[in-house]
Amino acid sequence: MSATDGAPAARTVLQQCLRAQLQVSPAGDQTEAQFVQIDRGMVIYICFFKGASEQILQKMVSTLLNVRLCESSSGKLVSVSELPGSVLIVPQATLGGKVKGRSMQYHNNISKEDGLRLYTTFVSLCEKELTAASAGSGAEVTVKHGTYGNRQVLQLDTNGPYTHLMEF
Amino acid sequence: MSATDGAPAARTVLQQCLRAQLQVSPAGDQTEAQFVQIDRGMVIYICFFKGASEQILQKMVSTLLNVRLCESSSGKLVSVSELPGSVLIVPQATLGGKVKGRSMQYHNNISKEDGLRLYTTFVSLCEKELTAASAGSGAEVTVKHGTYGNRQVLQLDTNGPYTHLMEF
Repeated sequence: MSATDGAPAARTVLQQCLRAQLQVSPAGDQTEAQFVQIDRGMVIYICFFKGASEQILQKMVSTLLNVRLCESSSGKLVSVSELPGSVLIVPQATLGGKVKGRSMQYHNNISKEDGLRLYTTFVSLCEKELTAASAGSGAEVTVKHGTYGNRQVLQLDTNGPYTHLMEF
Repeated sequence: MSATDGAPAARTVLQQCLRAQLQVSPAGDQTEAQFVQIDRGMVIYICFFKGASEQILQKMVSTLLNVRLCESSSGKLVSVSELPGSVLIVPQATLGGKVKGRSMQYHNNISKEDGLRLYTTFVSLCEKELTAASAGSGAEVTVKHGTYGNRQVLQLDTNGPYTHLMEF
């Protein structure tokens, strides 16, 4: 939680996927668009609010990767680390919006510079924790992520997204 | 808002789509799985909490269909009614979850019977309002929805999901 008023410092939405593909670089005049892709695993949409700091990141990552949200092949709920599954991180500033009349306002969203810094560290921590968790399992799991500030062109294929909201 | 404690009565997550397909009936021994599909428009994931009543539904529908969340072809933000786009409604009980240790708890979720009743009315109101809003536009827009209580097998194709959270 942010120190000031108990309002959340970060908002995440989680969806389970069989496959997810995200554009990380749009097509240019001479270049094709570039994409990253994961197979079975979890998509994390993430938005930071004003007041968010590095201190919350480790707890966020531990929670997100270790809460039992994923259905294993036997039907039992396990964490994405236990599955083991891959993770696709999607920066999603729109998640910070608040309805005002017929518009969304984003007054509580973090600045672009601070958001990028937290996002970059968040991605690194996810990579580190998921790699450690899946070491020795022989499973090929991976962390992929979108480019902060870009349009997030996403394709998602699920066997049930089991959409969850988690705030920190 | 629910009358008792200011806690939300319903939680929705919204995503823009170019195309979305949802299973409404799983495959049986003799039958194939059945799906509904929309093209350009908005996916509404919805979950009701204990204390939710019919009274909130009209306001929810008006807000969801009239807030400017969709990018028009000119790049301007318009509502899904103005786009005009279609709507896919996905019942999503997992949205009501709260982290407790390494598990999600759903103590505040509405009962299945009450949830089904509210969901059914919500779908009807969306159909009515979107049909009225798009009348005369010549656009073929539609409201499709998942089967309450079923596994929601979803495929989503976006040009940017612009994920939003709205609570009522």
